[in-house]
Amino acid sequence: MTVTEEKEQMITYESAGVNIDAGEEVVRRIKPLVRRTFNSNVLTDIGGFGGLYDANFPGMKSPVLVSSTDGVGTKIKVAIAAGKYDSVGHDLVNHCTNDILVCGAKPIFFLDYFASGKLNIERGVDIIKGFANGCEENSCALIGGETAEMPGIYAEEDFDLAGTIVGIVERDAILSRENVQAGDILIGLRSNGLHTNGYSLARKALVDILGIDAKPTELNGETIGEALLKIHRSYLKPVLSLFEKFSPREDIHALSHITGGGIIGNTSRVLSEGLKLDINWNAWQRPAIFNLIQSVGNVPEESMQKALNLGIGLVIIANASRADAIAQHLKDYGEEPVMMGRIVAK
Amino acid sequence: MTVTEEKEQMITYESAGVNIDAGEEVVRRIKPLVRRTFNSNVLTDIGGFGGLYDANFPGMKSPVLVSSTDGVGTKIKVAIAAGKYDSVGHDLVNHCTNDILVCGAKPIFFLDYFASGKLNIERGVDIIKGFANGCEENSCALIGGETAEMPGIYAEEDFDLAGTIVGIVERDAILSRENVQAGDILIGLRSNGLHTNGYSLARKALVDILGIDAKPTELNGETIGEALLKIHRSYLKPVLSLFEKFSPREDIHALSHITGGGIIGNTSRVLSEGLKLDINWNAWQRPAIFNLIQSVGNVPEESMQKALNLGIGLVIIANASRADAIAQHLKDYGEEPVMMGRIVAK
Repeated sequence: MTVTEEKEQMITYESAGVNIDAGEEVVRRIKPLVRRTFNSNVLTDIGGFGGLYDANFPGMKSPVLVSSTDGVGTKIKVAIAAGKYDSVGHDLVNHCTNDILVCGAKPIFFLDYFASGKLNIERGVDIIKGFANGCEENSCALIGGETAEMPGIYAEEDFDLAGTIVGIVERDAILSRENVQAGDILIGLRSNGLHTNGYSLARKALVDILGIDAKPTELNGETIGEALLKIHRSYLKPVLSLFEKFSPREDIHALSHITGGGIIGNTSRVLSEGLKLDINWNAWQRPAIFNLIQSVGNVPEESMQKALNLGIGLVIIANASRADAIAQHLKDYGEEPVMMGRIVAK
Repeated sequence: MTVTEEKEQMITYESAGVNIDAGEEVVRRIKPLVRRTFNSNVLTDIGGFGGLYDANFPGMKSPVLVSSTDGVGTKIKVAIAAGKYDSVGHDLVNHCTNDILVCGAKPIFFLDYFASGKLNIERGVDIIKGFANGCEENSCALIGGETAEMPGIYAEEDFDLAGTIVGIVERDAILSRENVQAGDILIGLRSNGLHTNGYSLARKALVDILGIDAKPTELNGETIGEALLKIHRSYLKPVLSLFEKFSPREDIHALSHITGGGIIGNTSRVLSEGLKLDINWNAWQRPAIFNLIQSVGNVPEESMQKALNLGIGLVIIANASRADAIAQHLKDYGEEPVMMGRIVAK
């Protein structure tokens, strides 16, 4: 056996499909982006075994940590089809932010998981740039993450993302179902598209039938890809502005983030037994992308309501006596709130 | 067009490949397992938008949160090949526990991410059972998680897992590279196999060549699948026992969790410039599975050292004057510590 033959039969870590050096290069390039998200509570540099965050929260009486993990679902397939990788991480941070915001919390730090079939350095940097941009928007530190190369699970061009957010809330400002009662008013904040849910449905109805680059007249010059990849809105700023003027619990009885399960599925999570939603589905105009999915895919209304936010990304369950003032405050803040119904007894 | 024809052309959420009801059934079945991991700091029930954890840590002077996100790599492919799904979640919790333990922290809560091509209820429950078992072993609360169905990214039988752990440490007990110095002694704690790293290499060398059910004589009656799926050891209990008797920082200068990158790659992360490792590679016998990978796969020693823990899962960098006492304490605790080398000047 010659040396060449022997070499060909050797299995090395790289020939098994894992490239440690590419991972290190991604980490090197993202360092400055990640560092921009740090604040004085962050006690660590990246690259350690764990991310360190000072748990002294001066000025808080009884701090409670609120955490959430999520993914972006098959929005990833749309990103791959469109060749645009720098927004899905941002989607995920905003999604997680909203998930803890509806408990009353604001984010403090975030950790990402990025797994792909083959780690492409440019694409990896774009992905993490999205996470860093999302963390900047929501004033949270990108304190840790894992970049995994998993040939055999993911096709070479495929990948998946998961993210975990940790936030903080004063114990007596935690929002839950407790204060919700019959008569409460539902105020919707608008979404800018599908956010991160319903993409299996949307891909089948739009991408598979019309194509990612199609520009149907209904979208006014936007492509299907552009409309589907709009970044999930973070409601942190308008809602924190509400919390400054209105009391969580007394004025704002609860909040609901509209994700998989739609408006009813998610808002029902903050209803006690004996209460139900009375939604005026005609109170707002759905963004064009939803009507397009429904008509091109011939999707029944029930599936539309179960899978999609239909134009409402966050629902405020407001004390009826304060609902108009809350809506006015939101208008002043630049939102277009929708008075979309109320809570009624079953 | 008849009603039947119309139905056949409709795209519903389920026909697009996503089964919300299966997800709800998994959540229903895992509730009791998850609840077993709760303690009085957990302020939430599962199913809310965020997991709530009381951030008052009585008795601590200056608490610091330590967090880490990770996956189990392609150990998942071995689990799928062996049809054993209830251990990989446990692997991941133990892995994450070790990652923050080497900073000096003990876990407080964990969140899981589980994505698959098609959500099989039994398999989903098994997966989450693994997470719950891991959380019980390490006394941390399984406070949140996401179960995602992603047809189009994962093949029907494939899946991926990610996990995030958050732990806590007293600020003046944080371990880092600061106290490591020339002369320090390296004490290894044994691994029970590959833990969660090097599976792309191991699969190519063993599973592809010998098969998952093969029982090579070297493994003394174990199958390849059994040897490769041994649960990643958590070092929480022996190390917490050390922290009770020996001072973090003064006696235990640093700890290193041996994951991807091997003994040198990981232990170098706690070395300052000017220091290097002097490892006696003959100080311990490698578990049979490593020798088998090397011989069957004809894997060069360099790749073995870069990809695999080779029998050492955690390295204690000990003050030389306390190393013998530390090793004796570990022996009394039931460990078989390995005096495996020392830190030297470059």
